[in-house]
Amino acid sequence: MKILLIGATGKLGRAVHEALRARGHEVVTASRNGSDISVDITDPESVRAMYEKTGRVDAVANTAGWVPWKPLTELGSGDVMAGLRGKAFSQVELVRQGTAHAVEDASFTLITGVLSRDPVRTGSMASLANGAIEAFVRAAAIELPHRQRINVVSPTVFTESMPAYGEIFVGFEPVPVAAAARAYVRSIEGHQTGQVYVVE
Amino acid sequence: MKILLIGATGKLGRAVHEALRARGHEVVTASRNGSDISVDITDPESVRAMYEKTGRVDAVANTAGWVPWKPLTELGSGDVMAGLRGKAFSQVELVRQGTAHAVEDASFTLITGVLSRDPVRTGSMASLANGAIEAFVRAAAIELPHRQRINVVSPTVFTESMPAYGEIFVGFEPVPVAAAARAYVRSIEGHQTGQVYVVE
Repeated sequence: MKILLIGATGKLGRAVHEALRARGHEVVTASRNGSDISVDITDPESVRAMYEKTGRVDAVANTAGWVPWKPLTELGSGDVMAGLRGKAFSQVELVRQGTAHAVEDASFTLITGVLSRDPVRTGSMASLANGAIEAFVRAAAIELPHRQRINVVSPTVFTESMPAYGEIFVGFEPVPVAAAARAYVRSIEGHQTGQVYVVE
Repeated sequence: MKILLIGATGKLGRAVHEALRARGHEVVTASRNGSDISVDITDPESVRAMYEKTGRVDAVANTAGWVPWKPLTELGSGDVMAGLRGKAFSQVELVRQGTAHAVEDASFTLITGVLSRDPVRTGSMASLANGAIEAFVRAAAIELPHRQRINVVSPTVFTESMPAYGEIFVGFEPVPVAAAARAYVRSIEGHQTGQVYVVE
């Protein structure tokens, strides 16, 4: 398959790239910089330009998303909008515009995380965006045109991220980033839709 | 208790108002117009002005929220942002600003609905916003200052709305709006936090 991988330079993106290559897929990479295509997924115009460059794809896999991490009482209204734009609006935009650039039976695979179900302090904007996307995926699954599918991978904290995030996710059992990458393969090569693949 | 009720002129707002009055509470009403206080909850400045007028409250109950209803393939990026702003950003704003205007042990009760779990066609923006708020409530519950609490009421379609929405929610078992109003009373007078009160 020809697969568009957005967020390809990140920790998860690199693992997904490796897993997809190992399965023999052609991967077109996109990210803010350092990939085949430069894209800012929070900007609909940039997303449009990306899809014009990719041509028709068999699958879209996103590993990118950004939210502010702050105590609830220190959030400004700009932080809330930035969190919604950085991980919810952006991912909806990849799907909304992507349907016209993906083949019949194509799949979309988005990213959320454990904070939609198990919150931690300073993570309320991640919870907000993750919850939005998990519910959106269930909804989009029954509306996507051309028998296209959509799922989301929702991992807990990565083993590889524990040095940086271990104090926030204290007591959480981490998973290797490769386990989350396998969930992308499952979404892309499998036939389910509307699923939240919990990896924990 | 002195309770700020936002969305007081809507179908659900009127039922919550009646239920709170029946329990002997003092209810300060707010809505776009026709209430004690006029407010546009999508505008942080308008929310600020509302809280300045209410003075300190014992509980904040919101029944207001708006999202566009459109087939997925007809949504523009402006619709997505409007949905996020109308029912997710707006409700976070009520909490974010509200903590400073609510007493110790005060409660916030927000509104979502069945589409976070069971989608219908044209409802993807409602699903998106509902999922965001349900996850946010779980997160905010572990961060709110002053022992304040937060819950969300998530009803299925109302019996009273079936004439207008029956064709969208075909086969759904509706609930009377009064049942959802009782969930607000439960949230406000009870002691739980971080809960999604499913009413279906």
